[in-house]
Amino acid sequence: MLATFMYGPGDVRVEETEEPKILQPTDAIVRITLSCVCGSDLHAYHGGGTRSGIARMGHEFLGIVEETGTDVQTVKKGDLVLAPFVWADNTCDFCREGLHTSCRHGGAWGSGDVGGGQAEAVRVPQADGTLVKLPVPEDSELLPDLLTLSDVMCTGYHAAVKGRVSSDTTVTVIGDGAVGLSAVLSAKLLGASRIILMGRHTDRTNLGVEFGATDVVPERGEEGIQKVKDLTDGDGTHVVIEAVGFKDAYDQAFGVVRKGGTVSRVGVPQYQDANVGFPTMFFPNITLTGGVAPARAYIETLLPRVLDGSIHPGKVFDRTVALTDIAEAYRAMNDREALKVLVRP
Amino acid sequence: MLATFMYGPGDVRVEETEEPKILQPTDAIVRITLSCVCGSDLHAYHGGGTRSGIARMGHEFLGIVEETGTDVQTVKKGDLVLAPFVWADNTCDFCREGLHTSCRHGGAWGSGDVGGGQAEAVRVPQADGTLVKLPVPEDSELLPDLLTLSDVMCTGYHAAVKGRVSSDTTVTVIGDGAVGLSAVLSAKLLGASRIILMGRHTDRTNLGVEFGATDVVPERGEEGIQKVKDLTDGDGTHVVIEAVGFKDAYDQAFGVVRKGGTVSRVGVPQYQDANVGFPTMFFPNITLTGGVAPARAYIETLLPRVLDGSIHPGKVFDRTVALTDIAEAYRAMNDREALKVLVRP
Repeated sequence: MLATFMYGPGDVRVEETEEPKILQPTDAIVRITLSCVCGSDLHAYHGGGTRSGIARMGHEFLGIVEETGTDVQTVKKGDLVLAPFVWADNTCDFCREGLHTSCRHGGAWGSGDVGGGQAEAVRVPQADGTLVKLPVPEDSELLPDLLTLSDVMCTGYHAAVKGRVSSDTTVTVIGDGAVGLSAVLSAKLLGASRIILMGRHTDRTNLGVEFGATDVVPERGEEGIQKVKDLTDGDGTHVVIEAVGFKDAYDQAFGVVRKGGTVSRVGVPQYQDANVGFPTMFFPNITLTGGVAPARAYIETLLPRVLDGSIHPGKVFDRTVALTDIAEAYRAMNDREALKVLVRP
Repeated sequence: MLATFMYGPGDVRVEETEEPKILQPTDAIVRITLSCVCGSDLHAYHGGGTRSGIARMGHEFLGIVEETGTDVQTVKKGDLVLAPFVWADNTCDFCREGLHTSCRHGGAWGSGDVGGGQAEAVRVPQADGTLVKLPVPEDSELLPDLLTLSDVMCTGYHAAVKGRVSSDTTVTVIGDGAVGLSAVLSAKLLGASRIILMGRHTDRTNLGVEFGATDVVPERGEEGIQKVKDLTDGDGTHVVIEAVGFKDAYDQAFGVVRKGGTVSRVGVPQYQDANVGFPTMFFPNITLTGGVAPARAYIETLLPRVLDGSIHPGKVFDRTVALTDIAEAYRAMNDREALKVLVRP
């Protein structure tokens, strides 16, 4: 079968590799029918493969169950299923607390003896805990919307939930990438009346406005901070969602958060140390939260909203490529030509 | 009258200064009958006075109202009152949200034209919002307990509240100073069943056990982290309260916090940058919270508990000096001879 590998910075290749096989009774094999490229894949695209060499790429996919191990009970051959971006047993204490990313028997796609999702097929460990059966036909028009529940929409939702967005809070979202736009949609879903989107790509911020942003601030740095303050009587907003991952965005977040407010990060931080000192964070009682989104925890909440058409998170996809052309998808996203690219194996 | 001034590192002097006067119709003058020295005063003791020179010290006091401005309605001459460690109007939006430390018309003792609390008298701005009338006689045995509501007990409580301590959470408290011990008492009050106190001064940790600590870990750094992990099946605790303020304690906090958990800081950070990176904070979904405690917000909750004798936070005081001997109080606390010192003008 074909699968996607990152050999080094900017070096994405689709190559023949062995078909996955059931290794554990809790495994399933899924024939992938739709996957995509993630903004976080671009961090790997800049930094190259893993330390050990070549990385197996992809962690967002849906497809058809082809085979199941003897212990698998909740899905069967022929089911259309969605996988969240880590696999998890969904029964351990962390999973029960909604932190599937820290599952005691879970792990990441493309690690150990588990392949990536930008491929024709994949072995799914802990299939009962990981896979969610989708109650739609294989050719449903909702598939792009549903695919976002693998990661990007749930990541935006995680940011909003961890930031405790509600009808009582104002929100700033930093970043007009697919996660930032999903965070706007999530903040709207949780009732925020004021959602300021900081981003400077008009086509993206236009989608942000469609998703619920009430204001768009294209300026960055000190100028952007001042603009948000001007919009909020000098106070900033109760919640700031940081959906970029660079240090500048971190500093910008602390510049626009209201005293007593929360900075919720879902952009994968490309830095270790940052300012958490007295004037920045401690005196104004700012909370810093967020992290890797336990997508599995949010699928039960968000799936019905997709199925009833009340949200269309799949609008973040603006291009589709064949798996064999996936290198072009990485390039287009890296060059900001495409927002997020669907991949059809 | 006499008041306390910090001239430079280790240089505390009690000197004659002008009696305070009513300057605004919302002011009151309070004749101080009990005050104390704060752990945070020791940061000033190490660093010396303010940038502009000499610092007026003290932010925890109770006393008798001597005079009130024409607009003051809730307290009158002769009332025994307690002041929280910042003054605030208690009516602005931040105060209504319980963030009196960010009051739109508030400020700190010893700043601008307001004196400090380690003095014989002080002008209290926003007297209606700031002062809390104490329903006990002037010679009540509860005065030391009540004085802790100015700062130290409310600071420990703030740490526990911001960390969302409940009967479902396990807690580690780093630091056996008066704030750490108050945090233990607060965690107990909020129902925590497991409270691990990290501290190595036996007399203090003994008081911690009396306040509710279930385990004491005297080791620090990697050794201390391992000890807490051993006590918690390798997981750490849901909440970690950092009541020290040094970078080592910050790193220790992230070493003992459970995935998905919260580090709540109330030790005034003596650093600006710290690790908030992927492995430390982002991947395990750790929340960093806390800050300067809005003591005024918690007095309504804690005052009844002191009055009915269910908590005795005043046990943190282990020495009393006259105002004229306050330099000796600073020295004793700095040398760890005394935990927290009462001052009687």
